[in-house]
Amino acid sequence: MIELKKDERLDDLQRKGYRIIQKKGGFCFGMDAVLLSAFAQIREGEEVLDLGTGTGIIPILLAGRGKGERFVGLEIQEDSVDMAQRSVCYNGLENRITIEQGDIKEASFLLGKDRFSVVVTNPPYMIGNHGLTNEGKALQIARHETLCTLEDILRESSKVLKQKGRFYMVHRPFRLPEIMCRMTEYGIEPKRMRLVHGRMEKEPSLLLIEGCKGGRPRLKIEPPLIIYEADGSYTKEVLRWYEEEA
Amino acid sequence: MIELKKDERLDDLQRKGYRIIQKKGGFCFGMDAVLLSAFAQIREGEEVLDLGTGTGIIPILLAGRGKGERFVGLEIQEDSVDMAQRSVCYNGLENRITIEQGDIKEASFLLGKDRFSVVVTNPPYMIGNHGLTNEGKALQIARHETLCTLEDILRESSKVLKQKGRFYMVHRPFRLPEIMCRMTEYGIEPKRMRLVHGRMEKEPSLLLIEGCKGGRPRLKIEPPLIIYEADGSYTKEVLRWYEEEA
Repeated sequence: MIELKKDERLDDLQRKGYRIIQKKGGFCFGMDAVLLSAFAQIREGEEVLDLGTGTGIIPILLAGRGKGERFVGLEIQEDSVDMAQRSVCYNGLENRITIEQGDIKEASFLLGKDRFSVVVTNPPYMIGNHGLTNEGKALQIARHETLCTLEDILRESSKVLKQKGRFYMVHRPFRLPEIMCRMTEYGIEPKRMRLVHGRMEKEPSLLLIEGCKGGRPRLKIEPPLIIYEADGSYTKEVLRWYEEEA
Repeated sequence: MIELKKDERLDDLQRKGYRIIQKKGGFCFGMDAVLLSAFAQIREGEEVLDLGTGTGIIPILLAGRGKGERFVGLEIQEDSVDMAQRSVCYNGLENRITIEQGDIKEASFLLGKDRFSVVVTNPPYMIGNHGLTNEGKALQIARHETLCTLEDILRESSKVLKQKGRFYMVHRPFRLPEIMCRMTEYGIEPKRMRLVHGRMEKEPSLLLIEGCKGGRPRLKIEPPLIIYEADGSYTKEVLRWYEEEA
Protein backbone atom coordinates (compact mmCIF):
# COMPACT_ATOMS: atom_id res chain seq x y z
CA MET A 1 0.00 0.00 0.00
CA ILE A 2 1.25 3.43 -0.92
CA GLU A 3 1.85 6.08 1.69
CA LEU A 4 0.66 9.56 0.72
CA LYS A 5 1.47 12.71 2.67
CA LYS A 6 -1.55 14.79 3.54
CA ASP A 7 -0.93 17.43 0.81
CA GLU A 8 -0.45 14.78 -1.90
CA ARG A 9 -2.75 13.05 -4.37
CA LEU A 10 -2.37 9.90 -6.47
CA ASP A 11 -3.31 10.28 -10.14
CA ASP A 12 -4.05 7.57 -12.70
CA LEU A 13 -1.83 7.72 -15.82
CA GLN A 14 -4.26 5.56 -17.85
CA ARG A 15 -1.40 3.35 -18.96
CA LYS A 16 -0.72 -0.13 -17.61
CA GLY A 17 -2.38 0.93 -14.36
CA TYR A 18 0.51 3.28 -13.61
CA ARG A 19 -0.10 6.08 -11.13
CA ILE A 20 1.83 9.14 -10.06
CA ILE A 21 2.09 11.05 -6.80
CA GLN A 22 1.60 14.81 -7.19
CA LYS A 23 1.17 17.65 -4.76
CA LYS A 24 -2.29 19.18 -4.29
CA GLY A 25 -2.04 22.72 -5.58
CA GLY A 26 1.53 22.12 -6.77
CA PHE A 27 2.96 21.68 -10.26
CA CYS A 28 1.10 18.80 -11.88
CA PHE A 29 2.07 17.16 -15.13
CA GLY A 30 0.25 18.33 -18.20
CA MET A 31 -0.19 17.79 -21.91
CA ASP A 32 3.44 18.90 -22.35
CA ALA A 33 4.88 15.81 -20.66
CA VAL A 34 2.42 13.50 -22.42
CA LEU A 35 3.22 15.00 -25.84
CA LEU A 36 6.97 14.86 -25.26
CA SER A 37 6.76 11.19 -24.22
CA ALA A 38 4.87 10.41 -27.43
CA PHE A 39 7.27 12.46 -29.60
CA ALA A 40 10.48 10.90 -28.21
CA GLN A 41 11.58 7.78 -30.06
CA ILE A 42 13.31 5.45 -27.62
CA ARG A 43 14.86 2.21 -28.86
CA GLU A 44 15.58 -1.13 -27.21
CA GLY A 45 18.54 -1.15 -24.87
CA GLU A 46 18.95 2.62 -24.65
CA GLU A 47 19.72 4.58 -21.50
CA VAL A 48 17.69 7.77 -21.21
CA LEU A 49 18.20 10.84 -19.01
CA ASP A 50 15.33 13.19 -18.09
CA LEU A 51 16.71 16.59 -17.09
CA GLY A 52 14.47 18.19 -14.46
CA THR A 53 12.21 15.18 -14.01
CA GLY A 54 9.95 16.75 -11.36
CA THR A 55 7.62 14.04 -10.07
CA GLY A 56 9.09 11.55 -12.56
CA ILE A 57 6.22 11.68 -15.01
CA ILE A 58 8.33 11.41 -18.19
CA PRO A 59 10.44 8.36 -17.23
CA ILE A 60 7.28 6.63 -15.99
CA LEU A 61 5.39 7.36 -19.22
CA LEU A 62 8.39 6.31 -21.34
CA ALA A 63 8.89 3.11 -19.34
CA GLY A 64 5.20 2.42 -19.95
CA ARG A 65 5.80 2.58 -23.70
CA GLY A 66 8.02 -0.46 -23.30
CA LYS A 67 11.29 0.43 -24.98
CA GLY A 68 14.39 1.83 -23.30
CA GLU A 69 16.53 -0.23 -20.93
CA ARG A 70 17.19 2.30 -18.18
CA PHE A 71 15.91 5.76 -17.25
CA VAL A 72 17.54 8.31 -14.98
CA GLY A 73 15.53 11.31 -13.75
CA LEU A 74 17.58 14.24 -12.42
CA GLU A 75 15.74 16.67 -10.15
CA ILE A 76 16.99 19.40 -7.83
CA GLN A 77 13.97 19.78 -5.51
CA GLU A 78 13.95 17.37 -2.58
CA ASP A 79 10.16 17.17 -2.32
CA SER A 80 9.84 16.24 -5.99
CA VAL A 81 12.64 13.67 -5.77
CA ASP A 82 10.85 12.04 -2.87
CA MET A 83 7.50 11.93 -4.71
CA ALA A 84 9.18 10.62 -7.88
CA GLN A 85 10.96 7.84 -5.97
CA ARG A 86 7.74 6.71 -4.30
CA SER A 87 5.90 6.77 -7.65
CA VAL A 88 8.64 4.61 -9.21
CA CYS A 89 8.26 2.09 -6.37
CA TYR A 90 4.45 2.17 -6.50
CA ASN A 91 4.59 1.23 -10.18
CA GLY A 92 7.23 -1.47 -9.63
CA LEU A 93 9.72 0.27 -11.90
CA GLU A 94 12.74 0.32 -9.53
CA ASN A 95 14.73 -1.87 -11.91
CA ARG A 96 14.33 0.54 -14.83
CA ILE A 97 14.05 4.04 -13.33
CA THR A 98 16.46 5.79 -10.96
CA ILE A 99 15.72 9.24 -9.56
CA GLU A 100 18.79 11.30 -8.63
CA GLN A 101 18.78 14.54 -6.69
CA GLY A 102 21.03 17.14 -8.26
CA ASP A 103 21.44 20.31 -10.26
CA ILE A 104 21.02 20.24 -14.06
CA LYS A 105 23.97 22.63 -14.28
CA GLU A 106 26.17 19.82 -12.90
CA ALA A 107 24.55 16.92 -14.79
CA SER A 108 27.68 15.84 -16.67
CA PHE A 109 29.75 15.99 -13.48
CA LEU A 110 27.16 14.04 -11.47
CA LEU A 111 26.22 11.44 -14.09
CA GLY A 112 29.17 11.19 -16.47
CA LYS A 113 30.06 12.44 -19.95
CA ASP A 114 29.23 10.65 -23.24
CA ARG A 115 27.00 8.26 -21.33
CA PHE A 116 23.38 8.53 -22.49
CA SER A 117 21.77 7.52 -25.80
CA VAL A 118 18.91 9.95 -25.24
CA VAL A 119 18.16 13.10 -23.23
CA VAL A 120 14.56 14.24 -22.74
CA THR A 121 13.53 17.46 -21.05
CA ASN A 122 10.47 19.56 -20.28
CA PRO A 123 12.30 22.60 -18.94
CA PRO A 124 11.00 25.86 -17.48
CA TYR A 125 9.62 27.96 -20.36
CA MET A 126 9.78 31.47 -18.99
CA ILE A 127 12.73 33.82 -18.80
CA GLY A 128 13.31 35.71 -15.54
CA ASN A 129 11.07 35.98 -12.49
CA HIS A 130 8.64 38.78 -13.21
CA GLY A 131 5.29 38.75 -11.49
CA LEU A 132 5.80 35.67 -9.39
CA THR A 133 5.24 36.92 -5.89
CA ASN A 134 2.13 34.81 -5.33
CA GLU A 135 3.57 31.55 -6.58
CA GLY A 136 5.23 28.93 -4.43
CA LYS A 137 8.92 28.22 -4.84
CA ALA A 138 8.44 24.77 -6.41
CA LEU A 139 6.06 26.13 -9.05
CA GLN A 140 8.39 29.01 -9.77
CA ILE A 141 11.33 26.66 -10.32
CA ALA A 142 9.26 24.44 -12.61
CA ARG A 143 8.01 27.31 -14.77
CA HIS A 144 10.74 29.95 -14.76
CA GLU A 145 14.44 29.84 -15.44
CA THR A 146 15.18 30.50 -11.80
CA LEU A 147 17.72 27.73 -11.30
CA CYS A 148 18.82 26.88 -14.83
CA THR A 149 18.62 28.39 -18.30
CA LEU A 150 18.08 26.92 -21.75
CA GLU A 151 21.81 27.32 -22.28
CA ASP A 152 22.62 25.27 -19.16
CA ILE A 153 20.32 22.51 -20.40
CA LEU A 154 21.87 22.37 -23.86
CA ARG A 155 25.45 22.55 -22.62
CA GLU A 156 24.89 19.69 -20.16
CA SER A 157 22.83 17.65 -22.65
CA SER A 158 25.65 17.87 -25.15
CA LYS A 159 28.14 16.68 -22.54
CA VAL A 160 26.14 13.72 -21.20
CA LEU A 161 25.04 12.47 -24.67
CA LYS A 162 27.02 9.92 -26.65
CA GLN A 163 28.06 10.95 -30.16
CA LYS A 164 24.89 10.69 -32.37
CA GLY A 165 22.79 10.61 -29.20
CA ARG A 166 19.32 12.17 -29.44
CA PHE A 167 17.84 15.13 -27.58
CA TYR A 168 14.07 15.64 -27.19
CA MET A 169 12.53 18.78 -25.73
CA VAL A 170 9.11 20.39 -25.39
CA HIS A 171 9.15 24.18 -25.21
CA ARG A 172 7.28 27.31 -26.24
CA PRO A 173 7.31 28.36 -29.90
CA PHE A 174 8.19 31.98 -29.11
CA ARG A 175 11.68 30.86 -28.08
CA LEU A 176 12.41 28.86 -31.25
CA PRO A 177 15.21 31.11 -32.58
CA GLU A 178 17.13 30.88 -29.31
CA ILE A 179 16.47 27.13 -29.12
CA MET A 180 17.87 26.56 -32.61
CA CYS A 181 20.90 28.80 -32.11
CA ARG A 182 21.81 27.22 -28.77
CA MET A 183 21.30 23.68 -30.06
CA THR A 184 23.61 24.43 -32.98
CA GLU A 185 26.10 26.18 -30.70
CA TYR A 186 26.35 23.09 -28.48
CA GLY A 187 26.59 20.64 -31.36
CA ILE A 188 23.04 19.25 -31.09
CA GLU A 189 21.73 19.62 -34.64
CA PRO A 190 17.94 20.15 -34.92
CA LYS A 191 16.60 17.19 -36.97
CA ARG A 192 12.83 16.97 -36.40
CA MET A 193 10.23 19.42 -35.19
CA ARG A 194 6.50 19.49 -34.63
CA LEU A 195 4.22 22.35 -33.67
CA VAL A 196 1.18 21.69 -31.48
CA HIS A 197 -1.93 23.79 -32.11
CA GLY A 198 -5.02 23.68 -29.90
CA ARG A 199 -7.04 24.31 -33.05
CA MET A 200 -5.95 24.43 -36.66
CA GLU A 201 -6.61 28.14 -37.07
CA LYS A 202 -4.76 29.09 -33.88
CA GLU A 203 -1.11 29.83 -33.23
CA PRO A 204 0.87 26.87 -31.87
CA SER A 205 1.10 26.63 -28.09
CA LEU A 206 3.89 24.07 -27.90
CA LEU A 207 6.96 23.03 -29.83
CA LEU A 208 8.44 19.53 -29.91
CA ILE A 209 12.00 19.25 -31.13
CA GLU A 210 14.51 16.45 -31.71
CA GLY A 211 18.23 17.04 -32.11
CA CYS A 212 21.21 14.80 -32.79
CA LYS A 213 24.63 15.32 -31.23
CA GLY A 214 27.02 15.68 -34.15
CA GLY A 215 24.17 15.32 -36.69
CA ARG A 216 24.24 16.63 -40.26
CA PRO A 217 22.15 19.80 -40.86
CA ARG A 218 18.71 19.02 -42.31
CA LEU A 219 15.49 19.64 -40.40
CA LYS A 220 12.28 17.70 -40.99
CA ILE A 221 9.21 19.67 -39.93
CA GLU A 222 6.27 17.35 -39.42
CA PRO A 223 2.61 18.15 -40.15
CA PRO A 224 1.01 20.25 -37.40
CA LEU A 225 -0.40 18.36 -34.43
CA ILE A 226 -3.93 19.64 -33.91
CA ILE A 227 -5.58 18.78 -30.59
CA TYR A 228 -9.22 19.82 -31.03
CA GLU A 229 -11.71 19.81 -33.88
CA ALA A 230 -13.81 22.92 -34.47
CA ASP A 231 -16.59 21.38 -32.31
CA GLY A 232 -14.25 20.92 -29.33
CA SER A 233 -13.88 17.14 -29.65
CA TYR A 234 -10.43 15.57 -29.93
CA THR A 235 -9.00 15.16 -33.43
CA LYS A 236 -8.61 11.66 -34.90
CA GLU A 237 -4.86 11.72 -34.31
CA VAL A 238 -5.21 12.47 -30.61
CA LEU A 239 -7.96 9.87 -30.20
CA ARG A 240 -5.90 7.23 -32.01
CA TRP A 241 -2.98 8.06 -29.82
CA TYR A 242 -4.99 7.71 -26.59
CA GLU A 243 -6.21 4.33 -27.80
CA GLU A 244 -2.62 3.16 -28.37
CA GLU A 245 -1.75 4.26 -24.86
CA ALA A 246 -4.60 2.41 -23.20
CA MET B 1 2.86 47.95 -77.48
CA ILE B 2 5.28 45.63 -75.77
CA GLU B 3 8.18 44.04 -77.59
CA LEU B 4 8.75 40.38 -76.77
CA LYS B 5 11.82 38.42 -77.84
CA LYS B 6 11.04 35.17 -79.59
CA ASP B 7 11.83 32.98 -76.53
CA GLU B 8 9.69 35.12 -74.20
CA ARG B 9 6.07 35.03 -73.06
CA LEU B 10 3.82 37.60 -71.41
CA ASP B 11 1.88 36.33 -68.38
CA ASP B 12 -1.14 37.87 -66.68
CA LEU B 13 -0.65 38.57 -62.95
CA GLN B 14 -4.41 38.81 -62.31
CA ARG B 15 -3.94 42.05 -60.44
CA LYS B 16 -4.76 45.49 -61.83
CA GLY B 17 -4.13 44.11 -65.32
CA TYR B 18 -0.41 43.79 -64.57
CA ARG B 19 1.61 41.43 -66.73
CA ILE B 20 5.12 40.04 -66.56
CA ILE B 21 7.63 38.98 -69.18
CA GLN B 22 9.13 35.55 -68.57
CA LYS B 23 11.31 33.23 -70.61
CA LYS B 24 9.74 30.17 -72.21
CA GLY B 25 11.33 27.17 -70.51
CA GLY B 26 13.20 29.45 -68.09
CA PHE B 27 12.64 30.16 -64.42
CA CYS B 28 9.05 31.37 -64.04
CA PHE B 29 7.61 32.85 -60.90
CA GLY B 30 5.68 30.51 -58.69
CA MET B 31 3.59 30.25 -55.56
CA ASP B 32 6.71 31.24 -53.59
CA ALA B 33 6.80 34.79 -54.92
CA VAL B 34 3.04 35.18 -54.58
CA LEU B 35 3.07 33.92 -50.97
CA LEU B 36 6.01 36.13 -50.02
CA SER B 37 4.30 39.20 -51.49
CA ALA B 38 1.21 38.45 -49.42
CA PHE B 39 3.23 37.77 -46.25
CA ALA B 40 5.33 40.96 -46.44
CA GLN B 41 3.75 43.94 -44.69
CA ILE B 42 4.74 47.11 -46.50
CA ARG B 43 3.65 50.49 -45.15
CA GLU B 44 3.04 53.86 -46.77
CA GLY B 45 6.16 55.77 -47.72
CA GLU B 46 8.58 52.87 -47.31
CA GLU B 47 11.47 52.04 -49.63
CA VAL B 48 11.79 48.32 -50.32
CA LEU B 49 14.68 46.30 -51.73
CA ASP B 50 14.17 42.91 -53.43
CA LEU B 51 17.43 40.95 -53.37
CA GLY B 52 17.67 38.74 -56.46
CA THR B 53 14.53 40.09 -58.14
CA GLY B 54 14.75 37.89 -61.26
CA THR B 55 12.07 39.06 -63.67
CA GLY B 56 10.83 41.63 -61.12
CA ILE B 57 7.79 39.66 -60.01
CA ILE B 58 7.97 40.62 -56.33
CA PRO B 59 8.27 44.42 -56.72
CA ILE B 60 5.49 44.33 -59.32
CA LEU B 61 3.19 42.29 -57.05
CA LEU B 62 4.02 44.53 -54.06
CA ALA B 63 3.45 47.71 -56.06
CA GLY B 64 0.11 46.22 -57.06
CA ARG B 65 -0.86 45.95 -53.40
CA GLY B 66 -0.65 49.72 -53.24
CA LYS B 67 1.58 50.55 -50.31
CA GLY B 68 5.31 51.25 -50.43
CA GLU B 69 6.73 54.41 -51.99
CA ARG B 70 9.67 53.00 -53.93
CA PHE B 71 10.93 49.54 -54.86
CA VAL B 72 14.42 48.56 -55.97
CA GLY B 73 15.04 45.14 -57.53
CA LEU B 74 18.65 43.95 -57.56
CA GLU B 75 19.50 41.22 -60.07
CA ILE B 76 22.82 39.90 -61.36
CA GLN B 77 21.69 38.25 -64.61
CA GLU B 78 21.52 40.61 -67.59
CA ASP B 79 18.69 38.77 -69.35
CA SER B 80 16.51 38.92 -66.24
CA VAL B 81 17.29 42.60 -65.64
CA ASP B 82 16.22 43.35 -69.20
CA MET B 83 12.96 41.43 -68.86
CA ALA B 84 12.25 43.02 -65.48
CA GLN B 85 12.82 46.53 -66.82
CA ARG B 86 10.49 45.95 -69.77
CA SER B 87 7.82 44.51 -67.44
CA VAL B 88 8.07 47.58 -65.18
CA CYS B 89 7.56 49.83 -68.22
CA TYR B 90 4.72 47.71 -69.61
CA ASN B 91 2.86 48.12 -66.31
CA GLY B 92 3.59 51.85 -66.09
CA LEU B 93 5.50 51.46 -62.83
CA GLU B 94 8.71 53.32 -63.78
CA ASN B 95 8.07 55.93 -61.09
CA ARG B 96 7.91 53.36 -58.32
CA ILE B 97 10.18 50.46 -59.37
CA THR B 98 13.85 50.58 -60.35
CA ILE B 99 15.71 47.47 -61.50
CA GLU B 100 19.47 47.52 -60.89
CA GLN B 101 21.98 45.05 -62.27
CA GLY B 102 24.43 43.90 -59.63
CA ASP B 103 25.66 41.23 -57.27
CA ILE B 104 23.80 40.59 -53.99
CA LYS B 105 27.20 40.16 -52.32
CA GLU B 106 27.86 43.86 -53.04
CA ALA B 107 24.36 45.18 -52.32
CA SER B 108 25.35 47.53 -49.50
CA PHE B 109 28.24 48.91 -51.55
CA LEU B 110 26.05 49.39 -54.64
CA LEU B 111 22.91 50.72 -52.95
CA GLY B 112 24.04 52.25 -49.65
CA LYS B 113 23.99 51.26 -45.98
CA ASP B 114 21.11 51.88 -43.53
CA ARG B 115 18.91 52.91 -46.44
CA PHE B 116 15.90 50.59 -46.80
CA SER B 117 12.87 50.16 -44.56
CA VAL B 118 12.27 46.66 -45.91
CA VAL B 119 14.20 43.87 -47.65
CA VAL B 120 12.33 41.05 -49.37
CA THR B 121 13.97 38.02 -50.94
CA ASN B 122 13.12 34.73 -52.60
CA PRO B 123 16.65 33.33 -52.71
CA PRO B 124 18.02 30.09 -54.15
CA TYR B 125 16.96 27.26 -51.83
CA MET B 126 19.54 24.59 -52.57
CA ILE B 127 23.08 24.24 -51.27
CA GLY B 128 25.81 23.41 -53.78
CA ASN B 129 25.47 22.34 -57.40
CA HIS B 130 24.91 18.60 -57.36
CA GLY B 131 23.05 17.01 -60.25
CA LEU B 132 22.56 20.11 -62.32
CA THR B 133 24.18 19.20 -65.59
CA ASN B 134 20.95 19.36 -67.59
CA GLU B 135 19.81 22.70 -66.30
CA GLY B 136 20.50 26.04 -67.91
CA LYS B 137 22.71 28.57 -66.18
CA ALA B 138 19.87 30.99 -65.35
CA LEU B 139 17.79 28.26 -63.75
CA GLN B 140 20.78 27.02 -61.80
CA ILE B 141 21.50 30.50 -60.44
CA ALA B 142 17.87 30.96 -59.43
CA ARG B 143 17.61 27.63 -57.63
CA HIS B 144 21.07 26.88 -56.23
CA GLU B 145 23.51 28.88 -54.16
CA THR B 146 25.86 29.17 -57.11
CA LEU B 147 26.47 32.91 -56.89
CA CYS B 148 25.43 33.77 -53.36
CA THR B 149 24.73 31.98 -50.09
CA LEU B 150 22.18 32.49 -47.35
CA GLU B 151 24.96 34.10 -45.32
CA ASP B 152 25.69 36.63 -48.11
CA ILE B 153 22.00 37.55 -48.22
CA LEU B 154 21.70 38.06 -44.46
CA ARG B 155 24.97 39.98 -44.17
CA GLU B 156 23.97 42.38 -46.97
CA SER B 157 20.37 42.67 -45.77
CA SER B 158 21.58 43.70 -42.34
CA LYS B 159 23.82 46.36 -43.88
CA VAL B 160 21.26 47.90 -46.25
CA LEU B 161 18.42 47.93 -43.68
CA LYS B 162 17.73 50.87 -41.40
CA GLN B 163 17.66 50.15 -37.66
CA LYS B 164 14.29 48.38 -36.93
CA GLY B 165 13.95 47.71 -40.67
CA ARG B 166 12.10 44.51 -41.64
CA PHE B 167 13.33 41.48 -43.56
CA TYR B 168 10.95 39.07 -45.36
CA MET B 169 12.08 35.78 -46.90
CA VAL B 170 10.54 32.65 -48.39
CA HIS B 171 12.68 29.53 -48.06
CA ARG B 172 12.57 25.79 -47.49
CA PRO B 173 11.71 24.48 -44.02
CA PHE B 174 14.63 22.03 -43.95
CA ARG B 175 17.04 24.97 -43.64
CA LEU B 176 15.24 26.64 -40.71
CA PRO B 177 18.01 26.11 -38.11
CA GLU B 178 20.61 27.74 -40.36
CA ILE B 179 18.18 30.54 -41.25
CA MET B 180 17.53 31.34 -37.59
CA CYS B 181 21.18 31.16 -36.58
CA ARG B 182 22.33 33.38 -39.45
CA MET B 183 19.53 35.90 -38.90
CA THR B 184 20.50 36.16 -35.24
CA GLU B 185 24.20 36.32 -36.11
CA TYR B 186 23.60 39.30 -38.41
CA GLY B 187 21.31 41.12 -35.98
CA ILE B 188 18.03 40.40 -37.80
CA GLU B 189 15.86 38.94 -35.05
CA PRO B 190 13.21 36.44 -36.24
CA LYS B 191 9.82 37.93 -35.27
CA ARG B 192 7.11 36.15 -37.30
CA MET B 193 6.97 32.84 -39.15
CA ARG B 194 4.46 30.85 -41.12
CA LEU B 195 4.69 27.36 -42.55
CA VAL B 196 2.95 26.54 -45.83
CA HIS B 197 1.52 23.04 -46.23
CA GLY B 198 0.02 21.73 -49.48
CA ARG B 199 -2.40 19.75 -47.33
CA MET B 200 -2.93 19.80 -43.60
CA GLU B 201 -1.61 16.29 -43.02
CA LYS B 202 1.55 16.89 -45.08
CA GLU B 203 4.93 18.33 -44.15
CA PRO B 204 5.35 22.01 -44.97
CA SER B 205 6.88 22.80 -48.35
CA LEU B 206 7.65 26.47 -47.73
CA LEU B 207 8.62 28.74 -44.87
CA LEU B 208 7.79 32.45 -44.64
CA ILE B 209 9.81 34.46 -42.16
CA GLU B 210 9.94 38.06 -40.98
CA GLY B 211 12.87 39.53 -39.06
CA CYS B 212 13.60 42.91 -37.54
CA LYS B 213 17.04 44.52 -37.53
CA GLY B 214 17.85 45.16 -33.88
CA GLY B 215 14.54 43.60 -32.75
CA ARG B 216 13.88 42.10 -29.32
CA PRO B 217 13.80 38.27 -29.22
CA ARG B 218 10.25 36.88 -29.35
CA LEU B 219 8.94 34.87 -32.29
CA LYS B 220 5.29 34.69 -33.27
CA ILE B 221 4.48 31.52 -35.20
CA GLU B 222 1.24 31.93 -37.12
CA PRO B 223 -1.33 29.20 -37.80
CA PRO B 224 -0.31 26.92 -40.68
CA LEU B 225 -1.19 28.11 -44.19
CA ILE B 226 -2.94 25.21 -45.89
CA ILE B 227 -3.29 25.44 -49.67
CA TYR B 228 -5.62 22.56 -50.56
CA GLU B 229 -8.60 20.90 -48.95
CA ALA B 230 -8.75 17.09 -48.85
CA ASP B 231 -10.81 17.15 -52.11
CA GLY B 232 -8.12 19.14 -53.97
CA SER B 233 -9.99 22.46 -53.99
CA TYR B 234 -8.37 25.60 -52.57
CA THR B 235 -8.91 26.29 -48.86
CA LYS B 236 -11.09 29.22 -47.81
CA GLU B 237 -8.04 31.26 -46.84
CA VAL B 238 -6.43 30.91 -50.27
CA LEU B 239 -9.70 31.65 -52.05
CA ARG B 240 -10.32 34.74 -49.90
CA TRP B 241 -6.83 35.87 -50.64
CA TYR B 242 -7.23 35.49 -54.39
CA GLU B 243 -10.42 37.52 -54.19
CA GLU B 244 -8.63 40.35 -52.39
CA GLU B 245 -5.99 40.36 -55.09
CA ALA B 246 -8.44 40.60 -57.97
